[in-house]
Amino acid sequence: MAILPEPLEKLMLAFERLPGIGPKTASRLAFYMLRAPAEVSADLAEALKDIKISTALCKVCFNITAAGRDLCDICAAPERDNGLVCVVEEPMDVLALERTAGFAGRYHVLHGALSPIEGIGPDNLRIAELEDRVKEGRIREIIVATNPSMEGDATALYLRQRLETYPVHLTRLARGLPVGGDLEYADQSTLLRALAGRQDL
Amino acid sequence: MAILPEPLEKLMLAFERLPGIGPKTASRLAFYMLRAPAEVSADLAEALKDIKISTALCKVCFNITAAGRDLCDICAAPERDNGLVCVVEEPMDVLALERTAGFAGRYHVLHGALSPIEGIGPDNLRIAELEDRVKEGRIREIIVATNPSMEGDATALYLRQRLETYPVHLTRLARGLPVGGDLEYADQSTLLRALAGRQDL
Repeated sequence: MAILPEPLEKLMLAFERLPGIGPKTASRLAFYMLRAPAEVSADLAEALKDIKISTALCKVCFNITAAGRDLCDICAAPERDNGLVCVVEEPMDVLALERTAGFAGRYHVLHGALSPIEGIGPDNLRIAELEDRVKEGRIREIIVATNPSMEGDATALYLRQRLETYPVHLTRLARGLPVGGDLEYADQSTLLRALAGRQDL
Repeated sequence: MAILPEPLEKLMLAFERLPGIGPKTASRLAFYMLRAPAEVSADLAEALKDIKISTALCKVCFNITAAGRDLCDICAAPERDNGLVCVVEEPMDVLALERTAGFAGRYHVLHGALSPIEGIGPDNLRIAELEDRVKEGRIREIIVATNPSMEGDATALYLRQRLETYPVHLTRLARGLPVGGDLEYADQSTLLRALAGRQDL
C-alpha cells in the first residue's frame, strides 16, 4: 500500500534529486505545492522546462548568456575595462562578484578547478581559451578568483606557470578574516593567512 | 544591464518563492539545473505541472489521495483498525506517522490548528467532520497528535471539550525527551514535561 498518491510521490522524488535537498525538505516542498496558489508550481514548471535550451555560454568568457547570443552582457558592454580579467571557477561566482558592484573588468569562467582525484585536468577547463585571450595582448591584469580551497589553489598555481611567459600581471583575491566574522571562531588556516597578510593601519 | 540571462533569473525567482529557500539556495539550484542532465529539470517540471489537479482529499479522513478517488489508501484498507483514529494537523503528519510503522488505525487530518491570531477557528478545520465520524459510534479511541505547540495544545483541548459527550477515549502523544537528544540541550519546558511524565523503570 502506497502511503502517498503517486503524483505527490513523484514530485517528492524530483525535489530530492536536487543538491542540498534531503527527503524532509523534499516532502515539505511537495506538500507546500498542494496548498500554494496554482501559479507557484506552474511558474516553476515553466521556468524549468526550457532552461537548458534557452541558455548558452558566452564565446569569449564562457559565462552563461541567453541562447543565440555570442557574447554575454558583460563582454558586450563597451564601458567595462577589457584590460582587467577576473578568472572564476563557476558562473555563480560571476554573480557573486557582480553583486559587490566593486569590479569593472571582464570575466573568464573556467567551469571547474583542477582536481586530480576527480580526473579534472587543464584540458577539461577553459584554460586554453584564457591563454588565447591573453595572447591577444590587451589584458594587463588577471585577478585569479578561484575558490580558497585545495583545488582552487592548485588551479591558481597552474595558471601562474602557464601564463608566466606573457606580459600580464597576475593577482589573487586577498585571504583573511571574513567581514562580520569573529576572531574566536576563525579556523587556524584563515587566521594564519590573516596574520601573514596583515596590512598597515 | 542584467547580470543573468532572463530564463535563469526567472528560474531563480521561481525557486525563491518556495518555503525555506532563500536567494542563495535559489541561485545554487538554478545554476545546478544548467549543469544537470536534462531529465532532472524535465522530471521536476512534469511532476509540478499537474500536482494540484491530480490530487484530492479523502472524503473520510481528508488525507491527500489521487484525484477521482473517494477514499485514501488507508481508509480503503480493510485491515486497518477503524476503531482507532489518529487526529493530525497536516497530511505530512500522516506520512511521518506511517513511516514509524507503529500505528495500525486510521487518521483524521484537520488541515491546520486553532489560532485566534491568524483567525483560524473550529469552522476552518475539519472538526465537524471528525465529530460526524465519532457520532457513527465505531471509534473507541482518538489519539490527538496535534503539534506540541500553543496552537496544537489549544486544538487538543478544544477537541476534548467538543467530544466529551461521546463514549470515546481521547489520548495524546507522550511529551518528553526526544530519542537521541541530549539532556543538556533540552529546553526547559521539554524537561519539565519529561519530569512530569516520568515512568517506572
